[in-house]
Amino acid sequence: MNLSPKTVLTHLDELRALTSDVYGAQRIAWTPTWAAARAWFDRKLDELPFAALLERHQDAAGNRWITLPGTSPRALILGSHLDSVPNGGWLDGAIGVVTALEVLRALGEAHSGHPPCTIRLVDWADEEGARFGRSLFGSSAFAGTHSIDADRARTDRNGITMEDAVAPYGVAIERIGDAAIERQNAAAYLELHIEQGPVLEARNEPLAVVLGTKGVERHAITFHGQEAHSGSTPMSVRRDALAAAAQLALEIRPIARRHPDAVATVGLLKTFPGIVTAVVGRAEMTLDMRDLDAAVLAGMYADAQSASRRFAEQEGCTVEWARIWSIEPVPFHPKLIELCTAAIADVTGQTEVTQLPSGPLHDAAEVAHCGIPTVMMFVQSLRGLSHNAAEDTRREHIEQAVEAFAQLAERTIDWIIAE
Amino acid sequence: MNLSPKTVLTHLDELRALTSDVYGAQRIAWTPTWAAARAWFDRKLDELPFAALLERHQDAAGNRWITLPGTSPRALILGSHLDSVPNGGWLDGAIGVVTALEVLRALGEAHSGHPPCTIRLVDWADEEGARFGRSLFGSSAFAGTHSIDADRARTDRNGITMEDAVAPYGVAIERIGDAAIERQNAAAYLELHIEQGPVLEARNEPLAVVLGTKGVERHAITFHGQEAHSGSTPMSVRRDALAAAAQLALEIRPIARRHPDAVATVGLLKTFPGIVTAVVGRAEMTLDMRDLDAAVLAGMYADAQSASRRFAEQEGCTVEWARIWSIEPVPFHPKLIELCTAAIADVTGQTEVTQLPSGPLHDAAEVAHCGIPTVMMFVQSLRGLSHNAAEDTRREHIEQAVEAFAQLAERTIDWIIAE
Repeated sequence: MNLSPKTVLTHLDELRALTSDVYGAQRIAWTPTWAAARAWFDRKLDELPFAALLERHQDAAGNRWITLPGTSPRALILGSHLDSVPNGGWLDGAIGVVTALEVLRALGEAHSGHPPCTIRLVDWADEEGARFGRSLFGSSAFAGTHSIDADRARTDRNGITMEDAVAPYGVAIERIGDAAIERQNAAAYLELHIEQGPVLEARNEPLAVVLGTKGVERHAITFHGQEAHSGSTPMSVRRDALAAAAQLALEIRPIARRHPDAVATVGLLKTFPGIVTAVVGRAEMTLDMRDLDAAVLAGMYADAQSASRRFAEQEGCTVEWARIWSIEPVPFHPKLIELCTAAIADVTGQTEVTQLPSGPLHDAAEVAHCGIPTVMMFVQSLRGLSHNAAEDTRREHIEQAVEAFAQLAERTIDWIIAE
Repeated sequence: MNLSPKTVLTHLDELRALTSDVYGAQRIAWTPTWAAARAWFDRKLDELPFAALLERHQDAAGNRWITLPGTSPRALILGSHLDSVPNGGWLDGAIGVVTALEVLRALGEAHSGHPPCTIRLVDWADEEGARFGRSLFGSSAFAGTHSIDADRARTDRNGITMEDAVAPYGVAIERIGDAAIERQNAAAYLELHIEQGPVLEARNEPLAVVLGTKGVERHAITFHGQEAHSGSTPMSVRRDALAAAAQLALEIRPIARRHPDAVATVGLLKTFPGIVTAVVGRAEMTLDMRDLDAAVLAGMYADAQSASRRFAEQEGCTVEWARIWSIEPVPFHPKLIELCTAAIADVTGQTEVTQLPSGPLHDAAEVAHCGIPTVMMFVQSLRGLSHNAAEDTRREHIEQAVEAFAQLAERTIDWIIAE
């Protein structure tokens, strides 16, 4: 296989120049800049020597599919997303699609346009959900986990409905479930993505195997106490809602730390009436908990709930929980995890390869959720930054990622054929 | 002395009917309703049998003075304020002025209009500072602690300057310092006020001696950490500004509880970016600490500062403090505290009388601050509520307050003459 990792860098630089401004990438789904990114990608496909052999179409949910038929109809799918958040980074999503293109090119050429199994490339539609607050749009339609009713009701900040926004891009909102047909013959799904976290940089390693995407429990918690004058109310008679909330904000840390990969975050805490001279009568907070193990996550949720009730009682307060959102953990495929580990070890020369769960969600979670063997590979992020213009990865790490991902694809083809 | 506590209740009911709407009292300083309250009060003075002996005038800061000359020019001053916050209670301030009127009447009649020392009644202007954010306006001018420059720059929510607002009420902003002349011959100042807190109700006692007004240290505290993704950032590498802030919000409680009357309050806590999926990069909070002992207050301030630095360091954060406002404690006069205790004991039959510092500020703090012997008496507040229409006190407690305050006035006259 005659791979050119530098071509991936050239392509990423081209895409950045075409779809970014000084604030970062602007490839927001269902906008002209996103369409321009997809058109650029189509031109790159035109340049492939075996372009005439490719079947290309957009499915009912706006996902773009490129298929190189192989001897076996069973398909290896390589993919990610070209859409970005507003003022996004140059790599989030794009690195996966552009690397998949180079791997498709190299595999296609190596097999003279006729690989032993079918190879498909997918560019998922609206992974970020930046405009309508609905991430994994295209891949959830593929997986059958979307909700038409919820999607139909969504509007952007200008009041434009999702239905109206997607129509010019050839998507009819009531038909998006038809994207499930693309699951036919799917044998494996591979996705390369930036880590968006600090683990690999801290370990000074370029690549990691992703074990799955963590489940998420996301809740709004409200403590009710008694508003009172800060000057005339003795400490002993206060019912301070902030005191209960602060204890919970601290207690979630040992709850998470009991498990190696679990995280728990209080991102928002608000006090009411929120003035300097009043004991807090009501404190509102959010809690976001994640782990790859469903039982661990359920235990953390139960621990946090019982801690909140204990703190409320101690402080003479009451507490209410409301679920904002939750999703089950999605573990990736054991055999593909093994193949990904071997590919990284081969390219980096490491004897120990980092395996970690993904905290952020990815299209791969939807694909794995509907039973298709799936794995992801992470490449190091600098300073753990993502979703802004400062997002970056060393160019030599990107080259290593392309090599390892190509190896993973080759090993996966062998596995598909042997099965 | 032929005292009529029921007259005080009748007067308070009249004043409430005249100056309240369904939302509460509307006697905001420098408004027609406030002027109507003062005009009503003037009519009550007209009805006194010794009205012709009274000297009445408004000083340079808008305080109203009523003087019944006595054998000695040394003056006992009784006072409080008729102004209220918007949607205020019927008693805050008014109970002190209306009780002072009844005590003046009873003392004047008892001495046939010629008391052994001069008796003065004062209705302070704009105690609440509701419209311009400047409380204790009139009494601070009397005490010489106001700042002309600051007052001149103040505007209300409609952009009207304080200077323009006070002019129609006969006050020239650059002359308010001339109110200091009223300090002449002041021998003692007494003020009856509602507690505005829960202590007396909890003890089932009607009255308390006030030991002084607490000093206040009021600060804005900001912790800076590192914003990070809630899913991809392991617990061990986080620099969570909320974790530091939550520890400080809890630590101020033992810091205050080490001292019997101290209070410390975090009334506002805000997180940035304040979204469910981000570790908090910046947390802003307010801290309000109060105690009657300046050394205790300084120690609490130092303890809170060093705790904040310790928590910041533990969490990999930095911390900044900015003083919002502070005032020194103002202890009341030991002899007057003794006389007030005796008066309450006599009226209630209690052998133990509650003595407590005032958390809220009062005009009495300004009077005491400029060296005039001062004491306050508190009457029980129901549910600790004030500054709203639900503010209330049992009518029998108001009657006891009038009796005890009259006794305190008599005992103070004896003390002034004996000195």
